[in-house]
Amino acid sequence: MTTQFSKEQANRYFQELQARICEGLEQADGGGGFRTDGWERPGGGGGVSRVMENGEVFEKGGVNTSEVFGTLPETIARRINASPTGFYATGISLVLHPRNPWVPTIHANLRYFEMEDGSAWFGGGTDLTPYYCFTEDAVHFHTVLRNVCDASDPESYRKFKRWCDEYFYLKHRGEARGVGGVFFDYLKGDPDRHFRFVQGIGDAFLDSYLPIVRRRAGLAYGERERTWQLIRRGRYVEFNLVYDRGTTFGLETNGRVESILMSLPPLVSWIYDHTPEPGSKEEELLEILRHPREWIAA
Amino acid sequence: MTTQFSKEQANRYFQELQARICEGLEQADGGGGFRTDGWERPGGGGGVSRVMENGEVFEKGGVNTSEVFGTLPETIARRINASPTGFYATGISLVLHPRNPWVPTIHANLRYFEMEDGSAWFGGGTDLTPYYCFTEDAVHFHTVLRNVCDASDPESYRKFKRWCDEYFYLKHRGEARGVGGVFFDYLKGDPDRHFRFVQGIGDAFLDSYLPIVRRRAGLAYGERERTWQLIRRGRYVEFNLVYDRGTTFGLETNGRVESILMSLPPLVSWIYDHTPEPGSKEEELLEILRHPREWIAA
Repeated sequence: MTTQFSKEQANRYFQELQARICEGLEQADGGGGFRTDGWERPGGGGGVSRVMENGEVFEKGGVNTSEVFGTLPETIARRINASPTGFYATGISLVLHPRNPWVPTIHANLRYFEMEDGSAWFGGGTDLTPYYCFTEDAVHFHTVLRNVCDASDPESYRKFKRWCDEYFYLKHRGEARGVGGVFFDYLKGDPDRHFRFVQGIGDAFLDSYLPIVRRRAGLAYGERERTWQLIRRGRYVEFNLVYDRGTTFGLETNGRVESILMSLPPLVSWIYDHTPEPGSKEEELLEILRHPREWIAA
Repeated sequence: MTTQFSKEQANRYFQELQARICEGLEQADGGGGFRTDGWERPGGGGGVSRVMENGEVFEKGGVNTSEVFGTLPETIARRINASPTGFYATGISLVLHPRNPWVPTIHANLRYFEMEDGSAWFGGGTDLTPYYCFTEDAVHFHTVLRNVCDASDPESYRKFKRWCDEYFYLKHRGEARGVGGVFFDYLKGDPDRHFRFVQGIGDAFLDSYLPIVRRRAGLAYGERERTWQLIRRGRYVEFNLVYDRGTTFGLETNGRVESILMSLPPLVSWIYDHTPEPGSKEEELLEILRHPREWIAA
């Protein structure tokens, strides 16, 4: 007997995934814990934000779920070629800012969207933002994602990897945000199949990230690496506030500001015209960000 | 004999003002100096950026001039109800981030804009962003500005003060950026008169700000005030990257990124859901930002 996919299933999955991911991250951190804040959206719905600050490994991180509905603001409706109408959205969104500059920042987001006219789609993605690039880490991350993609559609990794490179791109800097991952949106039709794929990405999150954290979190660092991390975090802020659709969507739909902006790093630096030394590890990262790579065979 | 206003005059004035302001700021700083970077814009024109970092008083500050021309990008043309056409713009833009949290951050910008169809206008403004609010400082700042406005048009202070409160407003936070100042745009017709007004604002900059700097730069502060300053600087970043038209214009017209983003503070902090203690000086500031005041009689 097969059951039809429903938005309630998606919502329940995201909540269950939130609990599972937070538990895994707390174990990996070995010290910090997540605090939990529930919130209600005046126009309909609400969410649960779980935030860790000043952990051992994670200087700041948030794992949020939300289920919001009501009338879509006109600005957003226009952007997605819809008229202002009823909408429903449920999703999970997370960003982790590790303390140690050798450990990359990670972002993941999965969402299900329904419009009053019956159209519905999944979207999401996950991308890795290192401060220093270890090929081994990028390969691991992409391999886990490709395995999930391949189980759904052998063409999808190539497509979603490219989409990720295009989306997480700082036009004004001419730089990718990091070493990429996957990004997808408007996965319409056959919700059962797309939901299985989205669950695959969600279920793979801890596997895609924790082995990297374990490998790097014990490496020694100094003032130089910390300064570089704070500068690069500035790029993260620039991306999220200038380009990120999730941030814009949240702010424009009167989402809870503190939950939307939990993605911003705990400490950030903007130094005028900072340029890494030729041949340094810092310059190596920039080279990679300026010329996105194929980390694994697509 | 009267001479007709010209864009060359405006451009020359902004350059001369830049030199005068930098000299005044270096004297006030007593230690730091401005470095100078000239740059060229691929589409036409260029600018001169002058930046101070790690001064005694000013942790970071930039005083930039630019003179750019070419074809207006379509996105911007649409926003100001023009078709993509030739444009010319010259202006000065400055932001100062003091080290001491008792000293407010200041921003000023003056610009002259000409379109191929012959329409031309002045715009600009200046606003003060304290971390702790001293009524005396806000009153001083607004008094200097009102005096300049009154010499041009007795109605203008009231109008430009309100425009400033509306423009420098973080909608998602429900907060003004600071204690305001003046903001004006599209000052068309009678360029001689508007140019005199713009020069009045430019010439008053050091008078509007340095007495405040002198009063506050010697006050002792600790971890608490520094933390609050870093958090509030986060709001400055949010405003500049999410709302500020000057930043958007610069990024969209392929301006020099480092010159545009010199306005971002040297060190910034985002703490999740930070709320000042009831009755504290920090809460007092928030109250003021949530309910913009008339600091002086309009």
